[in-house]
Amino acid sequence: MRCALGQIDTTQGEPALNRRLIVDCARRAAAAGASLLVLPELALPGYCPKDLCYHESFLGRVEREARELARELPANLLVLFGSLARPPVPAGRRRHNVALMARDGELRVVATKRFLPNYDVFDERRWFDAGDSAILIEHEGLTIGVTVCEDIWNGTAGDPGMPRYEGDPPAELVAAGADLVVNLSASPWHRGKGEGREALVGEIAARVGRPLLLCNLVGGDDDVVFDGNSVAANGRGEIIARAEAFAEDLVVFDLDAQALPARRPDGLPEIRRAIVLGIRDYFAKSGFERALLGLSGGIDSALVAVLAAEALGPERVIGVGMPSRYSADASLDDARALAKNLGIEFRVMPIEGVFGAVTRELGPQFDGRELGLTLENVQPRIRGLFLMALANELQGLVLATGNKSELAMGYCTLYGDMCGALAPIADLLKTEVYALARHLNEGGSPPIPERSLARAPSAELRFDQKDSDSLPEYEILDPILRAVIEDGLGLDQLQGRGFEAAVARDVLRRVALNEHKRKQMPPGIKLSCRAFGSGRRMPITGGRLDRYDDEETP
Amino acid sequence: MRCALGQIDTTQGEPALNRRLIVDCARRAAAAGASLLVLPELALPGYCPKDLCYHESFLGRVEREARELARELPANLLVLFGSLARPPVPAGRRRHNVALMARDGELRVVATKRFLPNYDVFDERRWFDAGDSAILIEHEGLTIGVTVCEDIWNGTAGDPGMPRYEGDPPAELVAAGADLVVNLSASPWHRGKGEGREALVGEIAARVGRPLLLCNLVGGDDDVVFDGNSVAANGRGEIIARAEAFAEDLVVFDLDAQALPARRPDGLPEIRRAIVLGIRDYFAKSGFERALLGLSGGIDSALVAVLAAEALGPERVIGVGMPSRYSADASLDDARALAKNLGIEFRVMPIEGVFGAVTRELGPQFDGRELGLTLENVQPRIRGLFLMALANELQGLVLATGNKSELAMGYCTLYGDMCGALAPIADLLKTEVYALARHLNEGGSPPIPERSLARAPSAELRFDQKDSDSLPEYEILDPILRAVIEDGLGLDQLQGRGFEAAVARDVLRRVALNEHKRKQMPPGIKLSCRAFGSGRRMPITGGRLDRYDDEETP
Repeated sequence: MRCALGQIDTTQGEPALNRRLIVDCARRAAAAGASLLVLPELALPGYCPKDLCYHESFLGRVEREARELARELPANLLVLFGSLARPPVPAGRRRHNVALMARDGELRVVATKRFLPNYDVFDERRWFDAGDSAILIEHEGLTIGVTVCEDIWNGTAGDPGMPRYEGDPPAELVAAGADLVVNLSASPWHRGKGEGREALVGEIAARVGRPLLLCNLVGGDDDVVFDGNSVAANGRGEIIARAEAFAEDLVVFDLDAQALPARRPDGLPEIRRAIVLGIRDYFAKSGFERALLGLSGGIDSALVAVLAAEALGPERVIGVGMPSRYSADASLDDARALAKNLGIEFRVMPIEGVFGAVTRELGPQFDGRELGLTLENVQPRIRGLFLMALANELQGLVLATGNKSELAMGYCTLYGDMCGALAPIADLLKTEVYALARHLNEGGSPPIPERSLARAPSAELRFDQKDSDSLPEYEILDPILRAVIEDGLGLDQLQGRGFEAAVARDVLRRVALNEHKRKQMPPGIKLSCRAFGSGRRMPITGGRLDRYDDEETP
Repeated sequence: MRCALGQIDTTQGEPALNRRLIVDCARRAAAAGASLLVLPELALPGYCPKDLCYHESFLGRVEREARELARELPANLLVLFGSLARPPVPAGRRRHNVALMARDGELRVVATKRFLPNYDVFDERRWFDAGDSAILIEHEGLTIGVTVCEDIWNGTAGDPGMPRYEGDPPAELVAAGADLVVNLSASPWHRGKGEGREALVGEIAARVGRPLLLCNLVGGDDDVVFDGNSVAANGRGEIIARAEAFAEDLVVFDLDAQALPARRPDGLPEIRRAIVLGIRDYFAKSGFERALLGLSGGIDSALVAVLAAEALGPERVIGVGMPSRYSADASLDDARALAKNLGIEFRVMPIEGVFGAVTRELGPQFDGRELGLTLENVQPRIRGLFLMALANELQGLVLATGNKSELAMGYCTLYGDMCGALAPIADLLKTEVYALARHLNEGGSPPIPERSLARAPSAELRFDQKDSDSLPEYEILDPILRAVIEDGLGLDQLQGRGFEAAVARDVLRRVALNEHKRKQMPPGIKLSCRAFGSGRRMPITGGRLDRYDDEETP
């Protein structure tokens, strides 16, 4: 049988748009001779509609679009796509996350998601009730069993919040007679996820002895990026089809196709593509043309500028240099050079005039006393104000350029450098920022000035300031942060890993105390197994991570 | 048997602090002759520890504090308190939300929460595995059965995300021999919740024919306020004990006590107490002394100032008047009068100087063209910058003064008037703001100048501006917002309720398009059944609520 995986980029809560994508994809699949088309989980409502599931008008629209979709599809093609359904009896208030089949005008539910993920960024038990067994589909002499995303992940995602589910849907479908198992996915990306997912598909196919076809969503939706990487394995577990990473794709293949060579993880290029897609889709799906960002001459803003220019095209990106008395000449020069290298517009708006005006107003409030940290925070806030004003007038969106190390430690100014609609590198530690920047600079004409990479990092909010005045060296800090944020380690465990107690304690303390800043950060793009944002939910008040291993009670 | 309900105000993630509260409460209960003390759900770790549940050092600390607690308690007192437990076998990664009993040095799990709420602000399926049956406790000749919070709520909370759970824990405990059922709660407040909870306790007690004792948490934790209102009913369903609302309390009573008169809902006074407690606890639990807020002369900031002064004492509140060329003289006068009435410090920082400096910098960026809305947004951002600088220098926290109507419609400026650590009235619609302000003005010396109540609302960002230039009249807007946000109504349904199509469509559109602003709003205090924040999770891109009932596809 000729099969197709329709790896489309849907929009959350836009069933009319998504229907058109699906119909277009189905027509192309039919033209390529496919008789089965598999699409992603919740493809029609868009993953994830979240609390739109509580809006009857939305559910009604999804149902109408499903009927319209069934009418528009080409003949002789079995299309499996994800959607929402209201449970039949008793009339429940809650919804099901289902796979629908459409074939020659027929439309029906063929599977209801059984395992509902409720960890990390997932909240599916909030909206859905779990289903039980699926219906087998007869098609062109084959019996097809359908699963939805998590149904094939059982205890394998490695997240501490993942439960051990009851059952083994693909094995049960095969036991019931399935010749072929299909999985509709919306499986978001983090480092290593593509390889892990492909390995899982191979393992399950080999274990149940049947082909397994997984179609994953692709695209950026708010704070997550779906990587695509749809994949099919034959009954020996060999990979026979594989879709693009981080791009829409339609893969058409025969079930008896030859095995493909093994997939190699590609590390930094994947991170680059994830961020680029995240930026591009955020703008496309929110309808904004232009991106603005402050260019300090430092490495963070340089990296975001390169990625934004790649995502949107240089003509849609505006860099703004906003020097102060504390800025080195080199900083503005490097910012300008970067903009020139990228071919993006560069504007300069010195903050001195406004900084002076603010200082004049603040002085009398404090009888002229020296205002140290307060004036350090004023500077990024003026820059934020400038950027937001430019964005207002030019109808653009601001990109925040903060990294995960500084967001973790609170080494950032709320309403200042934290301003923005999207924070593309909020899930990259500073050492990862350097690694990705160096990667992007490989090749003939490196966009980022070498000096931005070489100079000691500085916020330039006072003379001769260095990040290392306020933070441990990033080579020490970042491994601690990873251990705390990703692995949940405490003081004793950090010491057990060889980190100095005083440093570890200070990091734990500052991570906990800065939860209030991160509460108001822009959406970041998830790149790690534990990003700040919807995948990490911490108390704001209380929760002092540095105190739990103390012998003394606080 | 002499029983006690220990309605304490715990801190999330601070088991050492909470242990001391519990021990102190137990000593007072013992001194009052109680032989049973019931405490809230998760009293030792604090509700809710959230993703701290993934931190081993935290779990270890909770377990050590529980053992220490058991040693410190008075003799002959059975203490039931909420805590966390790691499941015994198999060694699972997930946790249980449990009731522990401590008596004469003995410590053990007597109930594991069965119904785990995962709707509205609740994420309990994220952290916990559900338990099954509870252990009955023999104490002073009585058999006691224990439940945890949601275990007595089954389909009764009215939230569209609430499932229908399997089972009836209080009835099952009674069937197993319980003479008395106890419930450990952390049940957050919204309007009507206190009465509803008390009615539920009476109904269940009458249905199972046994006394039911519910101890609820009290206090503000980030965006929720627990109201206390602990309550006990006898086996006829009559209320025999009732604790304070919105305050710590220890109620000691005999099981054969006389029935109390019925509780009367008190509406506005409850909202006032909820906000006051929310503010007070946010400051207490984050360790900040001083609150700052902008006083515009308008009703929103006036209301927040009154509530903050009540919560913290007037000596801890600083009001800041920040007039511009567009401010009416009356506005500054009213702000000053309010501050005087409240006895709070009042500072004035005109924004003209900085506004002029910003305008001078922006002018050349746009070849001197007229900057309309952009300059309207600059003004609140300068005010935000001033407030944050004062807060930095004075080590205080800023209170945001925005209301739910403007947050819903995006009639607010991100990083401007949306600045703040806490948004006390973010869950009050504008008409509710007026009602509460009038209520606070009742009595001899009304704090809020009558003119602030009487003038047409204006943001004063241009000459002669009125809210009604940009928004429907609040008497029309607010019922639509309530129908959309609380009831999930769409365009057709709104028209069915008699709202004009064009107005309803515009409201739906703006509510959807401003999700990105609310993503970065400060925590608000939940007062309604659906507040912006963790209880309402919507896509940022996509999700256009105004389009679902269109016949045309977008």
